[in-house]
Order: sequence, then C-alpha cells, then structure tokens
Amino acid sequence: MTAVPTLGVGMVGYAFMGAAHSQAWRSAARFFDVPLAPDMAVLCGRDAAAVTAAADKLGWRSTETDWKALLRRDDVGLVDVCTPGDTHAEIAIAALEAGKHVLCEKPLANSVDEARAMVAAAEQARARGVRSMVAFNYRRVPAVALARRLVEQGRIGQVRHVRASYLQDWIVDPEFPLVWRLQKEKAGSGALGDIGAHIVDMAQFVTGDRLTRVSALTETFVTERPLPARNNDTASSGLSASGSVERGPVTVDDAALFLGRFAGGAVATFEATRFANGRKNAIRLEINGSTGSLAFDFESMNELSFFDGTEDPSTAGFRRILVTEPTHPYVDAWWPPGHLLGYEHSFTHEVVDLLRDLAAGTDPTPSFADGLQVQLVLDAVVRSAEAGSGWQPIPSESAQEK
Amino acid sequence: MTAVPTLGVGMVGYAFMGAAHSQAWRSAARFFDVPLAPDMAVLCGRDAAAVTAAADKLGWRSTETDWKALLRRDDVGLVDVCTPGDTHAEIAIAALEAGKHVLCEKPLANSVDEARAMVAAAEQARARGVRSMVAFNYRRVPAVALARRLVEQGRIGQVRHVRASYLQDWIVDPEFPLVWRLQKEKAGSGALGDIGAHIVDMAQFVTGDRLTRVSALTETFVTERPLPARNNDTASSGLSASGSVERGPVTVDDAALFLGRFAGGAVATFEATRFANGRKNAIRLEINGSTGSLAFDFESMNELSFFDGTEDPSTAGFRRILVTEPTHPYVDAWWPPGHLLGYEHSFTHEVVDLLRDLAAGTDPTPSFADGLQVQLVLDAVVRSAEAGSGWQPIPSESAQEK
Amino acid sequence: MTAVPTLGVGMVGYAFMGAAHSQAWRSAARFFDVPLAPDMAVLCGRDAAAVTAAADKLGWRSTETDWKALLRRDDVGLVDVCTPGDTHAEIAIAALEAGKHVLCEKPLANSVDEARAMVAAAEQARARGVRSMVAFNYRRVPAVALARRLVEQGRIGQVRHVRASYLQDWIVDPEFPLVWRLQKEKAGSGALGDIGAHIVDMAQFVTGDRLTRVSALTETFVTERPLPARNNDTASSGLSASGSVERGPVTVDDAALFLGRFAGGAVATFEATRFANGRKNAIRLEINGSTGSLAFDFESMNELSFFDGTEDPSTAGFRRILVTEPTHPYVDAWWPPGHLLGYEHSFTHEVVDLLRDLAAGTDPTPSFADGLQVQLVLDAVVRSAEAGSGWQPIPSESAQEK
Amino acid sequence: MTAVPTLGVGMVGYAFMGAAHSQAWRSAARFFDVPLAPDMAVLCGRDAAAVTAAADKLGWRSTETDWKALLRRDDVGLVDVCTPGDTHAEIAIAALEAGKHVLCEKPLANSVDEARAMVAAAEQARARGVRSMVAFNYRRVPAVALARRLVEQGRIGQVRHVRASYLQDWIVDPEFPLVWRLQKEKAGSGALGDIGAHIVDMAQFVTGDRLTRVSALTETFVTERPLPARNNDTASSGLSASGSVERGPVTVDDAALFLGRFAGGAVATFEATRFANGRKNAIRLEINGSTGSLAFDFESMNELSFFDGTEDPSTAGFRRILVTEPTHPYVDAWWPPGHLLGYEHSFTHEVVDLLRDLAAGTDPTPSFADGLQVQLVLDAVVRSAEAGSGWQPIPSESAQEK
Repeated sequence: MTAVPTLGVGMVGYAFMGAAHSQAWRSAARFFDVPLAPDMAVLCGRDAAAVTAAADKLGWRSTETDWKALLRRDDVGLVDVCTPGDTHAEIAIAALEAGKHVLCEKPLANSVDEARAMVAAAEQARARGVRSMVAFNYRRVPAVALARRLVEQGRIGQVRHVRASYLQDWIVDPEFPLVWRLQKEKAGSGALGDIGAHIVDMAQFVTGDRLTRVSALTETFVTERPLPARNNDTASSGLSASGSVERGPVTVDDAALFLGRFAGGAVATFEATRFANGRKNAIRLEINGSTGSLAFDFESMNELSFFDGTEDPSTAGFRRILVTEPTHPYVDAWWPPGHLLGYEHSFTHEVVDLLRDLAAGTDPTPSFADGLQVQLVLDAVVRSAEAGSGWQPIPSESAQEK
Repeated sequence: MTAVPTLGVGMVGYAFMGAAHSQAWRSAARFFDVPLAPDMAVLCGRDAAAVTAAADKLGWRSTETDWKALLRRDDVGLVDVCTPGDTHAEIAIAALEAGKHVLCEKPLANSVDEARAMVAAAEQARARGVRSMVAFNYRRVPAVALARRLVEQGRIGQVRHVRASYLQDWIVDPEFPLVWRLQKEKAGSGALGDIGAHIVDMAQFVTGDRLTRVSALTETFVTERPLPARNNDTASSGLSASGSVERGPVTVDDAALFLGRFAGGAVATFEATRFANGRKNAIRLEINGSTGSLAFDFESMNELSFFDGTEDPSTAGFRRILVTEPTHPYVDAWWPPGHLLGYEHSFTHEVVDLLRDLAAGTDPTPSFADGLQVQLVLDAVVRSAEAGSGWQPIPSESAQEK
Repeated sequence: MTAVPTLGVGMVGYAFMGAAHSQAWRSAARFFDVPLAPDMAVLCGRDAAAVTAAADKLGWRSTETDWKALLRRDDVGLVDVCTPGDTHAEIAIAALEAGKHVLCEKPLANSVDEARAMVAAAEQARARGVRSMVAFNYRRVPAVALARRLVEQGRIGQVRHVRASYLQDWIVDPEFPLVWRLQKEKAGSGALGDIGAHIVDMAQFVTGDRLTRVSALTETFVTERPLPARNNDTASSGLSASGSVERGPVTVDDAALFLGRFAGGAVATFEATRFANGRKNAIRLEINGSTGSLAFDFESMNELSFFDGTEDPSTAGFRRILVTEPTHPYVDAWWPPGHLLGYEHSFTHEVVDLLRDLAAGTDPTPSFADGLQVQLVLDAVVRSAEAGSGWQPIPSESAQEK
Repeated sequence: MTAVPTLGVGMVGYAFMGAAHSQAWRSAARFFDVPLAPDMAVLCGRDAAAVTAAADKLGWRSTETDWKALLRRDDVGLVDVCTPGDTHAEIAIAALEAGKHVLCEKPLANSVDEARAMVAAAEQARARGVRSMVAFNYRRVPAVALARRLVEQGRIGQVRHVRASYLQDWIVDPEFPLVWRLQKEKAGSGALGDIGAHIVDMAQFVTGDRLTRVSALTETFVTERPLPARNNDTASSGLSASGSVERGPVTVDDAALFLGRFAGGAVATFEATRFANGRKNAIRLEINGSTGSLAFDFESMNELSFFDGTEDPSTAGFRRILVTEPTHPYVDAWWPPGHLLGYEHSFTHEVVDLLRDLAAGTDPTPSFADGLQVQLVLDAVVRSAEAGSGWQPIPSESAQEK
C-alpha cells in the first residue's frame, strides 16, 4: 500500500449517511486493492463540539465548521456531500468549481432546476479532469449488480415488466412526530424523494433502460402530527405550556404510487411508502423478460432469484442464488461463500469504484446526469399526481446517459 | 344423509371449469354436512358424443345438447353456467326466468350492459325465492377467507395499501397460437377479464371495501400470433398450404396495470399479466393496515402471512400461518393440521356455501350485483387506458353490495 | 368409460384413512384414464349404524359388519385395509387367500413376524395372479415422485447425505389424553411407526437405496397422561367420580431419532416426533449428492428444491420447482400450472397406479416386501435404542426389493 | 473518546480469521461506546515481508515475526490468537503467563489435554485480573443472541428437541486438493472441529444447557485427493514431473453426525459436513420447546423464526423476525430497521463485549472452560464413532460453566 497515492477526503455532514460513508472510507483499502488510498482528512459540521466528537468517533483527523473553509484546504481532493438535499447544489457546485471531485448523496437535489445546475457544473469540471458521482448505493449491493449483469448478458431477454416497491413502516403511528423529513420546505418530498428515488434508479440501472412516462398518485394518510420537541426537556413530542400536544401539518406525501413506461417497451408499477406495516426496508424489484425473470428483496439482500425460461419446464424454477460466490460482483474481496454481507458494504463498494475511476480517469456512475434523470422522473410523478394521474413525459436531457 | 332433500343440478359447459365444478358437486356432501344433497342430473353441451363422454367421465347421469331443453327439465333445480363469458347472460337470465337457481362462472358477463341485465333478472328472481351466485372461487380458499376474517375483526386496523397482482406466463412464447382467449370478440378482454377480475374481487372481498376510481394502462406485447390449427392434421398452429405459418392479430391485452382508490381511503396497485416468466398462478395480495398487514400468494395457497403491529417489536414479524387448523374457514371438514388442500377445494367450498344458502333461504355471495361491480371496475380500467390513464370513477349501482 | 371393466372394492375401516381412500376411489376415474373402473361395492365396520352412516357419507353402495363376510362377496375383487395396524395381518392374509387383491395401509403390521407372514401370503397369492400393495401414499406426491425421477436420472450424482424428519406437535400439551395411539399394545410404537415409517419409506424410495444399519434413541417426554373419557359425558379426559383426572402411563415413544447408513454409502439422520411445536406435518427430506441436491417439505408439498451443482456458480442456486407442470408425475390429469394439489391427491394417484398394475398384470409398488423392509428398519431402531444406541443391521430378506 | 483509556492489541496470524478480527478491532469504537479504545499495536507472522504487507493492508501499526517478542512488548495488553489450532495452547498459555489478556480463536485447541492446560492457565491468570475468551463468534450474531434471550425468558418453555446442522460444500469435488484442513496432524479433525464445534457451542449457548452424552458416526467420502501444489508453478494441484497428479490420503472426517442428550432432558441431532451440495454456510438450529419453537439459518442470518405455542391457533405461525430492531441485541449501534448486518459484525460484537468485560473486571464468555467443554463433546464424538456409535458421556469438568 506504500506505493499508492492518497486522496484527501473531506466530508460534509455526519448523521446516518455520514456514518455509513465513514465506514466505507475506512474499509475500502482494507479489503480491496485500490489505486488511491483515501485519507480521511476532514469532517465538516456547523457545531464545533458536535463535529469534533463525531470526527473522533468516526475516524476523521480534523474538523471544519464552514464547508467553504473545507473547500480551500489543500489536503482535500474529494468532497463527500452527506447533508440534507436542500444544500447539495450549493456545496457540490462550489466544490467542483474549486477543483475537488465530488461524491454527492441522493437525491441529487430537491428540485430539477438545482439538479440541472449541478449537471452543468459537473460537465464543466469534467473538462478539467474533476469528476462527480451521485450516491445511489443500492447499485453496489452484489445481488443488484448481478441482476444488472444478467440482464446485460441477455439472460432474461427483452424486458416486459418491472415491478418495483420500497416499503417501510416507520411513520405508521399517527403520534410519530412531525420531523423535518415530513416537511416539504426541508425534504422536498416525502416517500417519493427519500425512497422512491432509489427504486427509480435501481429499476433503470438493472434494466439498462429509462422511464419515458409516468402516471401517478400520491397520498398523505396522516395529515397532522405532533410537533417534535424543541429541546431535551420533552422527550419526543412538543408539549405546549398547557400540556396538550401541539400539532402541525404534514406537507409531504406518505406514499407515492405510479405506473411507468420504459423506452424499450416495458411497463412498470412503482410504489414507495412509509406505511407498509411490518415492512422495514423492503426494496423489491421483479423484472420479467421474454426468456426469464429476476426478483430481489433488500430484506434478503444477499439473495437474487432468477428464473431461466429456456430450461426444461420439468426442472425450471426460481433459483435462490446466494450472492456470495467469488465470481459475484465485489464478493471476492470479502469472505468465503455463504458468509453474508450487510447494508454498509454497498457504500464500501461505491467508494472503491469511485477511487478506481478517479485513478483511471474514467467517469464514475451514476453520474450527476443520472441523478438529474431520476429527479426528472420524480418531478413527472408530482406533476402527474397533481394533474389527475394523466401521463407525464420524462424529458431526455442528457447525452451522458445510457 | 337419507333425510336430506336433493337438489338437481344441470351444468352447461364441461371444459376446465366444468371439471372443477363437477369435482365440487361430487365432493361437497362427502366431506361437509349439507342440508341439500346435490344430484348431478344433467350435463349439457352441443356435441352429443362429446357431452356423453364427458358426462361419463365427470359423473353426470344424463345429457342434453340444448341448454333450453335443460331448463325445461323438472329434475333440475339449479343451473351451473360454465360456458365462455359471451353466453353467460342469455343462459343465466333464461334459467332464472325458468325458476332455476343459478351459479355462474366469472366474469359475470363480457360487458357491463349484459351484467346489468343479469342483475335485474337476479333481483326479479330473488323476489320469487330463486337465487344466484357468481363463482369467484378464490374467496373460498381458506387462507383468503381467513384474511377476510382478520380484516373484519380489526386485526390490521384501517386499510392503507392494497397491492394485488395476478401473474401467469403461458403466452410468453410469441409462437404460442392465437387461441380464442386472445380474440376480443370471444373473450371480451385478455388478462384483464380473465385474471384481473379475480384480484379485483379478492381485494374488495378481503378489505370489505370497494374501488371508487382507477387509473390504468393496458399493453399487448405480442401483436400477431400463429393461427391455431383448424383440425387435427396440423398439431398446434395453422400451417398454410404452402407450409408457412399464417398469423392473425391479437386483439386483447396481454397485461393490464392500474392504480386504484378505495372508498375507505386505501390506495392500490393492480397488475394482471400472462407475461410474468416463471410465475404460473401467482395471485398475490398484500394489505397494509394501520395496525397490521396481511400477505397471500396462491402459489403457496395454504399459507397466510400476518403481521401484528401491536406486538412488542422485539418479537414482531410476519407469521406464516399454515391455514390447516380446524378453527380455520372450511378446514374442519377435511384433514388434520398440516395436510394441505388444493385448488379444487375452493370450488367445493363454494358449492357447500351455496347449498347452505339455498336451504336457509339466504342470499349467496358473491351476488350478481357483486359480479356487476367487478365488471364496472374492468370497464373503468379499459376506459382509463384508452383515455391516457386519467382517473375513471366506478359507479355505485347496487344497494346489495357491502 | 363404458368399455372399461369394473373392479369391486371392499374397504375395511372408515376413519381418517377410510375417508382419504374413499375420495381416491371416487376420484380416480374422474381425472385419469384407468383401465379398470372402481366400483365402491362395500364398506365394512363393526357397528352397523355407524358403518351405514359412513357408507352414505363416503359413497359406498352397501355395508358389512364382519370383514369375513366381505371376503365372501363375489362383487369384491379388491380389499382395502384401513384398520389399525394390529389387524392388518389377519385381514390381509385372509383376503389374499380368498383371491382378493389387497391394498393395505401402512405400517404393514405391528411386528416383523406379522409382516413376514404377510409377505409370504402375498408371494403365494401372486403366483395365482392376486396382487398386493402397501399404502405409503407420500411416494405419490408429485414432488416426491419428481425427486425420485431426478435421482434416477443421475441429476444429483452419488448420494452422500440423507436428512429426513417428520415433525408434528399434536401431543405437545401434557394434558392431551392417553388415546390409543399412545398405548403400545394397540399402536405397536409411537411416533416411530406412525410417522417414522413414512420417512424411512420415502428416503429409500427417493434414493432408490436401502438402509443397512441404524443407531437410535427414543424418548418419551410426557410419561403419564389423562385417561380419555369412556363416553360422551366427559368431554375429552377421564374424570373420576371424585372429579380428579385419572392418569395412565404412556407406553410408546414420543420421539425417535436415528443415524443410518445406506447400502450405497450415504449417511443419514432421521427424526420422527410429535413434540415439534409449530410443525404440523413437516415431512422434510434433503438429499445431498455428489453433483446436486434435493429438498422437500410436505408443508409446501407442491414444491421441490433442486440444486444443480454442475451449473456455473454465478447463477447456481436452489430452484423452487413448482411441481404443477404437465410434464411432472401425475399432474397432467389435473389443472393448469400453478393450480396446486393437496394431501388427498396422493391417494388418488396411489389408486390409479394400482388399477393400472392390476389391469396390466404387473406388480404394484410398494410391495408387501417393501413394507416388511420398513418394518425391519423400525425394529432395528427399537433394538438399537434399547441397546445403548449401538448399530443394528437391517437384514435383507426379500428378493423382490429394488 | 479522548477520555477513554486504550488497550494495545497484538494479533498473531492474519489469514481469514485475522482479516475478520482486524475489521472488528477497527470498527468497535466507531459504532459502539466502548470503555477501552483498542490500539491495533502489532501484527505477528513468521514471514517478515508478508506480515508487513498484511499489517499495512489490515491497519496494524507495527509487526513482529516472533510471537514471543510480541508478548514482551509493553504496548500490548491483549493477545488475539488467530493461528491454526495446533499452536493455540502454547501461545495462549504464554500470553496469559505474561499477563496479557487473551482472545483465542476456536476450537480452543486440537486436543482435550491442551484445552485443559489452557483452562488451568486461564484460571491462574484470572486470579491476577488477566482474562480470556474463546472466539465462538456466532453467539454474537443478533438473531442468535435474540434466540438465547427468548429461551432465557421462557418463551419456548422446556426444551425438548435440538436440531443442529452446519452444511457446507467446498470439498464436494473429488479433485479439490488435499489442503492442510484435510490432514489430521495439522487440523485435528475435519468438519467436526472446524464447523461442528460451532454448532455444539451455539446449541449449548442458546439452550443454556449442556450435552451430557453423544452417539456418533463420522465419514470420509473421498479418501484420496490430489496433493496441493508446493509452489506457484502449478496452479492448484500437485502435478508430478511426469504430469500425473500425485495423491495423498485424506485423514480427517468429511462429515460427522451425532445424536445427543442434554442435561435438561432434550434430545438432539447434530450434523457437520462439507459435502452438502449447494449449502454454502448453512448453520441451522431449530429448537422445539414445550410452549414454542425457534429456528435459525445463517444463510438468512438477519432473521429468526419464532413460534409462540401459547397463541390462538387461528393466528399462530412461525414469525419471521427481522432482527434489525433497536431493541435487538447489538443492533442499536448500527443502522435503522431493515438495514441488514453481515458476517463480520459478529466479530465486532465479540470485541465490544470483551472490551466491556475487561473494563468492568467481569469474566468474558465464552470462557476457556466453555471452549474445553466443546472440546470434550468433540472428543466424545470421535470416541463414539470409533466404538460403534455407543453412547459416550461428556464429563463435567468445570465449575465455571452455566
């Protein structure tokens, strides 16, 4: 490893995604042969005490409280944007202009306009050898990457059906408080952008195709919720002086459902919800092709179901492929067959692929243009839902896409 | 059994459904205590030799070649209509007018107008004590009946999501011939009416609620197929004199996908297709409620998955209920726990429930009005698909529905 | 069907197995083309009123109260023995001597000596064209028959491991009464003979091999249970005059576990228990061969899991074969793919195979010799358990076996 | 973290287990609040160049080529023994005598005598505050720890049945070379010690009970294998000068099967094999108790199946508990519900528990005495297999055990 050049990483934000990315930066070179060794140079957050504690905990060797200061540092070659979506555009564009590579959490932005500006910045930066990637981590789950490989190899033929859902249940209790994720001005949208974005990207990635039209509905089942407590005195909900619980309006969707059509002729159903009682992180994708089918559920993320329709019907059946063989994507860096990987490994794989692209001077995927394309789908979903579920086209804006 | 009065049954049609119904009529009194003993009096079909052979095979004691003759027979108290959908209305209405009870296969009719006429006839007949039932047999699968019971008992709370699909793959091969089920003038519609009707009924039955609006798309993936052979000389496809295969246009949908809204506030996705490679008869229904969830797949028809959201999260999980306990619907007539039932048992249960209603003078369900309501949903699906997937309302025509 | 000769059937016993066999006799010719049409001539039981009621219910056209009278009837060509095991030998031997074919429920007998006498009688009868079969019905579950076919075709190579268990839970409650099945003088043994016999036969059938040695333990967890009520006054347990519950000793095994070695070199574990809480009828068989594996669980009886070890590891995996294709054993007589079969279908298949053998003059399987061989295994299990689990050989007595 | 004292760790060995342990030492303080911060001080291996490369890769800050030198270092407070079993005793005993805490990979030793010596050393060291732990990592899989908790809480009542198997398939090909794991002098035993040890420990841990007797068989299916290549010239098997493959004898078991009895009255089957085609790391444990059951399969390691026999039979069923809730063991340090953990997390949990015990001055488990007890079971298995499968008692040697 001594001969490998290092890449200084500066990360902005250190909540859920920050913890996942930190583990990825720490682990990448421990398991994979990477051509660039990540140096966890600096962690950035607004609260000096909190960011220092986080840096200690997560393994970053210094801190900043202003992301602009981070951009000025010479020991930072890549900026990892883990903040909420409303700050992605500003930070990522400035970082690219400062000549830093950028890894940006999904969704790329909270609006199409921001996403377009980010794509423009990414394309300009690219001309100077500065690269960017949007962090749709589920592409790097080995079973999902294997699904993509099988489709690419023609193992299921022409894609006819896509059936995608992302099911969670964490706000099924109407007394769950009105956290920022349930407020439109901060989160942009609800289930749609938070989890719907993932299945849109995953479905397009695995099929190698793109959605051209959607017809959608969105729904908010619980329209008012207790305000979260403003401080630690009141545990999890906002009690007023009189002791009654103050409530505020939920301004985002609880669920988004849509039909879709792909360029290649496939038809699709998509569903993103946080009200699927008992489903914790059920990212499900089933694809039926003219000669076979694939099915995946993240709650069994080390498995891929594959039906080969060209087999003798007497022994044909969905195969439960345990995606832990050395011939499977990413797996040979880890453990022997049957020793499962977990959620955070997808981030390690993402970072490894990014490091390899940076060293090779190739374009990482998914690109910001891919992120914009997902944003255009989400935007069409919102417009269709507002307009009585009529079909809304997805514009094709970018030459960079598949 | 000696003291039990008999009910003479006359069945019209003897293909797939005829075989299933025959087994039901033969078995009902062998396992259940029924207040009316079915007498398999007469089987009706146009080809005298064929219907005689079928009657021998299936256990009917006489035959007719004209269904009108069957209606004149005194030894027939109930007419079981197992013909294709385009003849349902004429036969069922005439039978009701002749004072015969009617069991009619689904879909009730090929059009809403026919279905309305059948409902009118059924209501007039009912005033004279003559009763009718439409044969949505899947309601009588014990796991489906248990699901209905649990919803009714409030075990999953208020229904939020319905996720229904009926997946088959028997025409995935483009060389599969253009059978009558792929021709609109005979079949009315494709996957929509044939299998979509079942999941519409099942979803409404289990939730105890009704669809009020749909937004739909339909698709025909293979638009031209080989003509079927006209006689036995050429096995399964129509070879012309020159040896080339003649083809004709597929005039029905291969798949129908739609979003729906229920009166009670639930949102839904529905999908019916014959192009889901590897899925043979996957009737899947998942319902998420405010306090629990249910999931069913007919390919594991003796199981119901139930999530009770009121349990301690440390031990909560989807339970695989093996629906073979004596306390489960219909099961105590059969075998000990763990000894599975099959497809045809649903028909036996249907016939048993019908016999009990007839003896008690109560109204069998699903009624013709329920059948009409399903037809109205299918009709709205077609109209929405034709009109750019905008929402189409489902009229509420009948006071008899739940 | 008019041209088909009939075979008069006389059945002795009409409890659980009687009901299952009746449905088989009623259904065989309705679904299969059989060369002999069964005529359900006579049902035999000791209580005249009860047997008459049962005959009405189950569809037999006459009754006898003495099985010896049944043997004298000219309209009976086959005797179906559905009584408890302690009467099998006497009835079956007399029937064979009377020139009647015999279908005998399993286990063949309660002792090896009785089984040997039955084999001798069967062999003598066979010389006169009179045939016999022991009713290990699970061989005729399509998934089990398919497993046998795949092993025979060499699809899993040389068998290395057999892992068989039969798990039930119906006596897990210590207050469950001391029914006859828990008394040695009547039942012969407990879980061992009742359900262990099935997995011994199934494992030998599917592998096409035979056990040569066993090392065993047996256990009785609940050694004393309430006496069952003698009449209907006290519902399910024996209350004494003073109101306290009288108890008696359980004299059979609650569970039997054994290791085994097959002639072909495979090693095996077997387990039969009625104390596996939550397992209702879990007959599980997994076989690992040098090039593949098979797994089956009766609680999902329409499925067979098959691993083909010769495939590319990247797409290898256990396939869930839904055993409902027309190319699967027995299936083409029934419904389209994906329409499941149930428990009782195994008996229909058994009867169909038997009718075909009788018409063709071929030997039905499993033969009485096969039944004896299972009995010898059970006997060796008992001896090993009594002798500190040392290995006990299984004698090879019969030339008729595979 | 600044206030937390550090613990210098020295690890001996850096193959499969070394990589897993390194990830654990690196990750423990990043996710958990630990009272001692591990300092990855030194990695030890015989080959200077190789150990330096490994230290770089795995994140150790210095190296040694002699484990005795490692024991003399002041910056080492704990020795982590990841070498093959034949060196465990020597290194661990010396480390304990040098006042270093010891974490030792399983199996504790290759013989009972060595294990006894290690227990004696551990007990002497303990008197001086020096502690030891054997690394049965599967105890720290959250689903396994939850299973233990449920048994402890009485949720399944009295344990009746234990059904344990550890199934792999990596030597099913007879051309797989004769690696050291297949040679008795190096590995001690085959499947028995390598993987059988894990299920013995897991079954005893989850039940909270101990095996008192076993009756066993062992089998070697492939008795001769190609010698592995001695150098890199010949890829994976030993070609002689003449080009023919040289073969050597396999001197360990390919599979070990045994029956067992627990102190508390449960009966058990155990099976460890490397010949279960298609099973990659299937560690299966099913436990049936008087009021419930538990089932686990490591190939779905984030799930635990639980049957609660006290529930209404109409809704009872095995629940698939997704063991990713914050109330589940170890989980709250990681990700939200439904975001799965992998194999290596078990090692992180092991290290965290150990650090907490060391800081608190409490005894880590499993102790060396627990490791000895497993060794005594394995030894009894070997003796029983050699002596015709008669029962062999497991001596109870240690007061420290549960």
